[in-house]
Amino acid sequence: MKVLILGADGYLGWPTCLYFSQRGHEVIAVDNYFHRNAATEHDCESLIPTPDLVQRAEIWEELTGKKIEVHIGDVTNYDLLLSIFKKHKPDTVVHYAEQPSAPYSMIGQKEAAFTLQNNLITTLNIAYAVKEGNPDCHIIKLGTMGEYGTPNIDIEEGWLEIEHKGRKDKFLFPRQAGSLYHTTKIQDTDLLWFYTRMWDLRVTDLMQGPVYGLSTDETDLDKRLMPYFHYDEIFGTVLNRFIVQAVAGYPLTVFGKGNQTRGFLNLKDTMQCVYLSATQPADLGQLRVFNQLTESFSVNQLAEKVKKIGDRLGYNVKINQIKNPRVEKEDHYYNVHYTGLMELGLKPHYLTDEILENFFTITGQYKNRINKDAFFRGISWK
Amino acid sequence: MKVLILGADGYLGWPTCLYFSQRGHEVIAVDNYFHRNAATEHDCESLIPTPDLVQRAEIWEELTGKKIEVHIGDVTNYDLLLSIFKKHKPDTVVHYAEQPSAPYSMIGQKEAAFTLQNNLITTLNIAYAVKEGNPDCHIIKLGTMGEYGTPNIDIEEGWLEIEHKGRKDKFLFPRQAGSLYHTTKIQDTDLLWFYTRMWDLRVTDLMQGPVYGLSTDETDLDKRLMPYFHYDEIFGTVLNRFIVQAVAGYPLTVFGKGNQTRGFLNLKDTMQCVYLSATQPADLGQLRVFNQLTESFSVNQLAEKVKKIGDRLGYNVKINQIKNPRVEKEDHYYNVHYTGLMELGLKPHYLTDEILENFFTITGQYKNRINKDAFFRGISWK
Repeated sequence: MKVLILGADGYLGWPTCLYFSQRGHEVIAVDNYFHRNAATEHDCESLIPTPDLVQRAEIWEELTGKKIEVHIGDVTNYDLLLSIFKKHKPDTVVHYAEQPSAPYSMIGQKEAAFTLQNNLITTLNIAYAVKEGNPDCHIIKLGTMGEYGTPNIDIEEGWLEIEHKGRKDKFLFPRQAGSLYHTTKIQDTDLLWFYTRMWDLRVTDLMQGPVYGLSTDETDLDKRLMPYFHYDEIFGTVLNRFIVQAVAGYPLTVFGKGNQTRGFLNLKDTMQCVYLSATQPADLGQLRVFNQLTESFSVNQLAEKVKKIGDRLGYNVKINQIKNPRVEKEDHYYNVHYTGLMELGLKPHYLTDEILENFFTITGQYKNRINKDAFFRGISWK
Repeated sequence: MKVLILGADGYLGWPTCLYFSQRGHEVIAVDNYFHRNAATEHDCESLIPTPDLVQRAEIWEELTGKKIEVHIGDVTNYDLLLSIFKKHKPDTVVHYAEQPSAPYSMIGQKEAAFTLQNNLITTLNIAYAVKEGNPDCHIIKLGTMGEYGTPNIDIEEGWLEIEHKGRKDKFLFPRQAGSLYHTTKIQDTDLLWFYTRMWDLRVTDLMQGPVYGLSTDETDLDKRLMPYFHYDEIFGTVLNRFIVQAVAGYPLTVFGKGNQTRGFLNLKDTMQCVYLSATQPADLGQLRVFNQLTESFSVNQLAEKVKKIGDRLGYNVKINQIKNPRVEKEDHYYNVHYTGLMELGLKPHYLTDEILENFFTITGQYKNRINKDAFFRGISWK
């Protein structure tokens, strides 16, 4: 299979390149280094020193003999993206090329406008490039569980049949998100669902919960292959931040009451989910939605787990409930259905004590690179 | 009241300026002439010669002594918009500053990207300018009935209470539109609804059906005040196009079977609806949605009405069913609820024979300006 991975330098993008390459697929990797540049601009670089994308592909080739073709460029430039599609005719495109941070999107108008424009124009361009360059190509788009928000009804897997005044129809599950970033992910789904109806695209939308972890079987081969890993307020996800805070002797920053509940998954399971989706693609004319999580936790539950293992390892972990800078419900109903990816063959890596210990061990090796100033910036939703 | 009207040069924008000005309100009018320039580029100019916005404001002042302040500029430029908000502190902003054509948005990637970017960045900028410049300002955004598409259930007024597995919640009514343009109107609602929840904006979303007509009490005062009127495939709405086709002796272009049913309203009623919304604003933290139509017709019903009156006036009207260039259901359920604007005081102008005759009469005066090449361009949705 030929796989085009957009946003290939990122936390998920690079391990995905390796995962497909390792399994014998031809990988074309594209990135514009937005994430690296923004992290530098905001003084919140990756915990792990990571060579640039070209260098990482060279290291991978040295180690395995497998080639990943790299293009450095911005896929909001439609001519660039179309030329890549026409040259490579990918079977699958994995779309990670979005600004992925909720807090970044809430800093101010400039960052909001960038997020909106980047995330929607990349998605639009993919729809057009598939239509004009390779109509059979399967689009795998990363969505987020955050699109659903915290409704007072069960969260179904993407779609909801509604009966109203004796008549029925089926719609995308209602979505109302908690940040501008998450809102752009609702909007990119609107876009792809529109063009799927018009042009018979084949699309899989992976509604992913926050991902944690910093290793996969491939990135474990060599330190230089490790993912671009964030633990800061802007680009880090909650469990990743807690582990690094614990290692740094910094109190875990719980926003508000900490009863906010979300669905989580291990980085290794993201790899599986994307791969299973690619090898068992959606049909032409189908927007297939999967809820991509393996278990749900409240923020307090995560903090307690990190404290338990951290204390056992001698870190003396403190938990600090701070005023919530976000606008979100701190107590809410949360019941998510997620069976689709299991049916495709997902074998979850649950958040065991062993996994947490391993996470602490690797993080500990980079303790001297932790920038405590990055843990909390107080980016306010108001 | 101080009213800021964005997109003030357009078919709806200019009559809205006059409507508020006539009633003693202070009007600030902004436009970037996108619509005029695009109409020139695509050789589909207004039926009626219209002076530019600055000139029209001067004419209005000469005739009535009432001043409309004009800014020519692009509100995707946030600094410009914020400076206008800070200078004028409007009580109400009426947001017409979007690319308003479904066929234009389907021409190709360039036009789609422009539509997406323009329509969402203008909306984002308004949310930010209200927050930073004048948090009490009431935002009136034009939506479109086309956002709902043609669901198999009744179309409620913006919101739907859903009962699912014994639990209840209320959501924006599910929306799945028939063009990229209409999809951007779903997305701009997503944006405003998000920021309303975050920042307690006050927003009215007017889900408007296709508008017809070319006169209001104010534009009737002088020919030079008439609206910028389109009858072409790109920017014209269906009834406006039919009348001009009938006057030109060109067969009415019915797309496909013609059973597509939509809600319509008279240009005079758009004025009422916007005015009633402005003078009875939404509450802080409320996204208020009204379905803005006064009656529903199928395309065939409209064609027959135009033929009946046209024939009576000696035009010998032909109807031509052509292959539908759009992707849309030609037979579908359609039952819309719309009581909110009536409750605010709307007195509808229904589509009577008299109104159609008057429409023919005015159109006839511009017969020599009709460009028949503009009636059909065959812009395909596929």
